[in-house]
Amino acid sequence: MAVSSPVALDAMGGDHAPEQIVAGAVVAVRELGIPVVLVGEPRPLHDLLTRYGAASEIPIVRAEEAISMDEGALASLRRPRSSIAVACHLVRKGDASAVVSAGSTGGVVATAKLRLKTQPGVLRPAIAVALPTVPDPTILLDAGANADAKPEMLVQFAHLGVAYVATALGHDNPRVGLLTIGAEAEKGNKVVKRAHELLEAAPGIRFAGNVEGHDLLSGRVEVIVADGFTGNVALKTMEGSVRYAFGQLRQAVDGSTVARIGGLLQRPRLRGLYERLDPEAHGGAVLLGLNGCVVIAHGSSRAKGVAAACELAARLAAEGVVGKVGERIAAIPRSHRLWFSDRR
Amino acid sequence: MAVSSPVALDAMGGDHAPEQIVAGAVVAVRELGIPVVLVGEPRPLHDLLTRYGAASEIPIVRAEEAISMDEGALASLRRPRSSIAVACHLVRKGDASAVVSAGSTGGVVATAKLRLKTQPGVLRPAIAVALPTVPDPTILLDAGANADAKPEMLVQFAHLGVAYVATALGHDNPRVGLLTIGAEAEKGNKVVKRAHELLEAAPGIRFAGNVEGHDLLSGRVEVIVADGFTGNVALKTMEGSVRYAFGQLRQAVDGSTVARIGGLLQRPRLRGLYERLDPEAHGGAVLLGLNGCVVIAHGSSRAKGVAAACELAARLAAEGVVGKVGERIAAIPRSHRLWFSDRR
Repeated sequence: MAVSSPVALDAMGGDHAPEQIVAGAVVAVRELGIPVVLVGEPRPLHDLLTRYGAASEIPIVRAEEAISMDEGALASLRRPRSSIAVACHLVRKGDASAVVSAGSTGGVVATAKLRLKTQPGVLRPAIAVALPTVPDPTILLDAGANADAKPEMLVQFAHLGVAYVATALGHDNPRVGLLTIGAEAEKGNKVVKRAHELLEAAPGIRFAGNVEGHDLLSGRVEVIVADGFTGNVALKTMEGSVRYAFGQLRQAVDGSTVARIGGLLQRPRLRGLYERLDPEAHGGAVLLGLNGCVVIAHGSSRAKGVAAACELAARLAAEGVVGKVGERIAAIPRSHRLWFSDRR
Repeated sequence: MAVSSPVALDAMGGDHAPEQIVAGAVVAVRELGIPVVLVGEPRPLHDLLTRYGAASEIPIVRAEEAISMDEGALASLRRPRSSIAVACHLVRKGDASAVVSAGSTGGVVATAKLRLKTQPGVLRPAIAVALPTVPDPTILLDAGANADAKPEMLVQFAHLGVAYVATALGHDNPRVGLLTIGAEAEKGNKVVKRAHELLEAAPGIRFAGNVEGHDLLSGRVEVIVADGFTGNVALKTMEGSVRYAFGQLRQAVDGSTVARIGGLLQRPRLRGLYERLDPEAHGGAVLLGLNGCVVIAHGSSRAKGVAAACELAARLAAEGVVGKVGERIAAIPRSHRLWFSDRR
């Protein structure tokens, strides 16, 4: 990435768009030093930037339309000039290094697939998310781009995940686990059992075998591979369960005076814990396997989350995640590549 | 259930068998008033019972073999005289009201299917688990009996779950949710999308639409239906995430002196919270759809968990869960029953 190549930020996507998106752009530019271009309706965006005195710092690229949060994949066909489509176009032309959107996941995935296209040899893009394991996050993919996946796709997801970990975390030989329902090779549904065989034989993958639901946060592996249906259910279950546990804890604390004192004492520590578990802190999900880097921020993102997403996108682009995925896919021996096509 | 009809307890299954199983039997009989018969190797069981002075209170039925914890479904064929097979046989003969085992889930499911057979009209049995929602648990099924499910099976799981909730919780018209990746009807994989259509049209099911991973603990519905692969991943993810959240909390508490004081103050409340989230407190998973009630206790169960499983099994048997499932399946109109067979 040239230093001048900005992140294309979809200003119209997200529950708090465009206000919090613009606020996030200002944070990204001023506090994080990430160049950003806002994509959306020029007039309201200009007015918002003016409020921050940032109209001369952050350029705006016009997009007439937006995909609303409740629209799905089909909207990408109905709205060829949507803000997310225009953001993708900037990346294709080389005018931006990456796309960031807090818009509806379905809309972002469909539009990005259509506009940026899959990389050569890649069957399907996948959504990668960073789980809040310590010391390093575990990467889970696919977290929802493909509800129905074939075993060969799961092997490719492993390659995408390894490339992501190498790029974002500097870890060159991460362990890869396959999400299923038991440790033994024969535990799983048909797709996963076949994927297990393929992963065991896959060159360039350090396959650590099956992992289960409780391994999402155990740190046993650095990359967890799943079809997009299972990955999405597991991710949302994890988020909901952690939220539930803390909610129950808060009730227990609020419930008694003695306990409330204890709660007050613990607050600073607890807050640090909360923040590490906060999806906004991680910058968001990354759509891998396309000819361009796309970061999907949480729909509820506010300025902080939007800025973190811009930072993640800029870092992945600067470190060349797209190129690394391409190299891995190109390096798969011809005999193994046949697997990728014989079942399509 | 005749008052004298005992629960057949597999004394050889579980990480802490037979010691903790026998201890659990003693608790069940003496503290909970649940009649129990132990199934396994007579000599060691008799010795253990003698230690409690309970040899005259709890009968033993001989089984020469046991299915070990690391054996899967095939062991049920290899060991026709295993303790779990003999326990099932007691139920078939009418000499026991229900089966309880803390053995390997795969082994228990396969053996119980083989020995008790599915109820008339039931395609597949399903494992139902109680999630620790408040005030009432949410029932998730299938939690792992069938890794590959057809849409018609998911509709049957809904009926099994409704019968379970009616029996165990006295709730006659529970809401049923379908576990998938978005609220809209078209969100999901192929199996789930078809199941959504079938559930919408299913007589006798109060279908509340799609639910997502974070709804496992939200209490939005009383019954959550999933294929056994997704259900198992979600269940283990929930357990692991709650454990992780509490583990992180404990670290935060232990980490500073000030916080440690707070932690001490909170202990009594926290313990109550822990216990509600403890899988042992719920008695275990229930295998529904067979000609006999089977409760699968957690493999790591100790006396308390074993006794709770016996109590759950006795209650379900006394309230006639098998009959209620049978009535629901028989009440499905002929036109809807066709769905159940046309894709087999």
